[in-house]
Amino acid sequence: MPTAAIIGGGVIGSAWASRFLLNGWEVRFHDPAPNSDVVLNKVLDKARRWVPEVYDQLPPEGALTLCESIADAVTGADWVQESTPERLEIKQSVLAEIQASCAADAIVASSTSGFMPSELQAGSERPEQILVAHPYNPVYLLPIVEVVPSAVVPEETVQRAEALLSDIGMRPITLRAEIPAHVGDRLLEAVWREALWLIKDGVATTEQIDDLMTHGFGLRWAQKGLFETYRTAGGEAGMKHFLEQFGPCLQWPWTKLTDVSDLDDALINRIVEQSDEQAAGRSVSELEEERDANLVAMLKALRQEDTAAGAFLNRLGTSSG
Amino acid sequence: MPTAAIIGGGVIGSAWASRFLLNGWEVRFHDPAPNSDVVLNKVLDKARRWVPEVYDQLPPEGALTLCESIADAVTGADWVQESTPERLEIKQSVLAEIQASCAADAIVASSTSGFMPSELQAGSERPEQILVAHPYNPVYLLPIVEVVPSAVVPEETVQRAEALLSDIGMRPITLRAEIPAHVGDRLLEAVWREALWLIKDGVATTEQIDDLMTHGFGLRWAQKGLFETYRTAGGEAGMKHFLEQFGPCLQWPWTKLTDVSDLDDALINRIVEQSDEQAAGRSVSELEEERDANLVAMLKALRQEDTAAGAFLNRLGTSSG
Repeated sequence: MPTAAIIGGGVIGSAWASRFLLNGWEVRFHDPAPNSDVVLNKVLDKARRWVPEVYDQLPPEGALTLCESIADAVTGADWVQESTPERLEIKQSVLAEIQASCAADAIVASSTSGFMPSELQAGSERPEQILVAHPYNPVYLLPIVEVVPSAVVPEETVQRAEALLSDIGMRPITLRAEIPAHVGDRLLEAVWREALWLIKDGVATTEQIDDLMTHGFGLRWAQKGLFETYRTAGGEAGMKHFLEQFGPCLQWPWTKLTDVSDLDDALINRIVEQSDEQAAGRSVSELEEERDANLVAMLKALRQEDTAAGAFLNRLGTSSG
Repeated sequence: MPTAAIIGGGVIGSAWASRFLLNGWEVRFHDPAPNSDVVLNKVLDKARRWVPEVYDQLPPEGALTLCESIADAVTGADWVQESTPERLEIKQSVLAEIQASCAADAIVASSTSGFMPSELQAGSERPEQILVAHPYNPVYLLPIVEVVPSAVVPEETVQRAEALLSDIGMRPITLRAEIPAHVGDRLLEAVWREALWLIKDGVATTEQIDDLMTHGFGLRWAQKGLFETYRTAGGEAGMKHFLEQFGPCLQWPWTKLTDVSDLDDALINRIVEQSDEQAAGRSVSELEEERDANLVAMLKALRQEDTAAGAFLNRLGTSSG
């Protein structure tokens, strides 16, 4: 059985533990807080309830061991996941303690949302085994994880990390450049900043902004991202045509955020190229078909749930009848 | 039978026509382009295929009439939807032609994504019947629509517009302040700008950014918005505690977009208040339960679809078994 050491509990660490356990890994859990097992059990209960709803075939659950020390937890572990508070001096100190006891070929991953791997590695004697594996809440359900190695992490280690994360049902996205807050949180931050302006200026309420997402572009982004959505919207004229039309809008006073990248030819071409590669030969009609099938599936699913969103969609169904 | 006049076809106007028709309205359609009916029929075919999958009970489809002139289309219509190109002089000219023939108590709505209603109303003899009703693509499936009246539009007209939009299965969000690009597109624009930087700087590809959405925060935002997600993440300590922790991050160099609203006490309190109202007494545990149920429902639904996302999730299911 492969073994994961979870260092630092809370919502994130506990959900990492749950994900590893439900995918058959042995888990050794350490958190110095006296009630850390309460949070762990609460999260684990949720994971045990929901994960089998998504995945029909799960292996037998792994064994969980609560450990008194970091050394006990990490000795012999294949994967060490650090999820301590977001303060660099804490993380560096915990990572040093981890590396004092873990195997040299173990992968030591940090859940940090903000720090770059080279910051975490500073002062380490084995920086090459430390990387960022930043997940998204709820970690036991959402597949995404940002993997960020620095230049000193060997490619073999990165590939091994990707394979192990895939083994527990995750979708690793490996970023080839270090940047504070990685990628996902930067996008969230941009939305957050604009949303703060809109609320401050009295243009919209929190509920209106949330509704715009849950009944609008959130449904788009749950099954097509930003670029594939725009690609589809651009129609047969293509992504380049779409981008060239879009370009001038960046000069308009739409957001309060004004330091803007030039959408010059080089950037347009890069996006077109990446978008082409991403489409892998699928036509706009095929992309539309995927989009519609996905949206229908999600809307039907939401309707069947006894939730606010489901109740609303049910009401829509009734009022349309 | 209520009647809608659709002025301007294309993807948006054609999808408006489809939504009205499938919800039992009579539709009169006008677009001067010679092949506008080709686009219309293509979109209508999609709507006829997908909308009944979501809504079990639909009324008999309404009658569609292609009209040679704006006057023919709008005479006697209850609702006029203008979806012409995004140029103010075109829209003002078309709106004048619409108002020359439509009833004084018809609602004249514009699909504009950028212009404010007072801009559209400028020079009109009956500005009080013009408002913005900005939908999101695909209009026949996504329920959201931003309704933006200006100060001269009577409250009764706004309420009638909301009722009619609800009648065709939409979720109207009425904005009480005019602002260029309304709300949703400003949020999209903020993400878009940051995404452009990330691509320009070589940090991520279009596919990686899309994957972060489709396997990560897009799934969150499809069933909880920005604020309810953060409210849930904040846990029992509450939204205020969460915001106070979040505040300092706005000073960090996370985005390239630097003109930032101060997250001062007044703004914190406003958000807390709106978020409390939105939660309507539901505890964080209840919000978590809704979130998990929704995510499970969507993930299950996506797995069953023969799409890239579905295939990936199926693979996950298999590899976990």
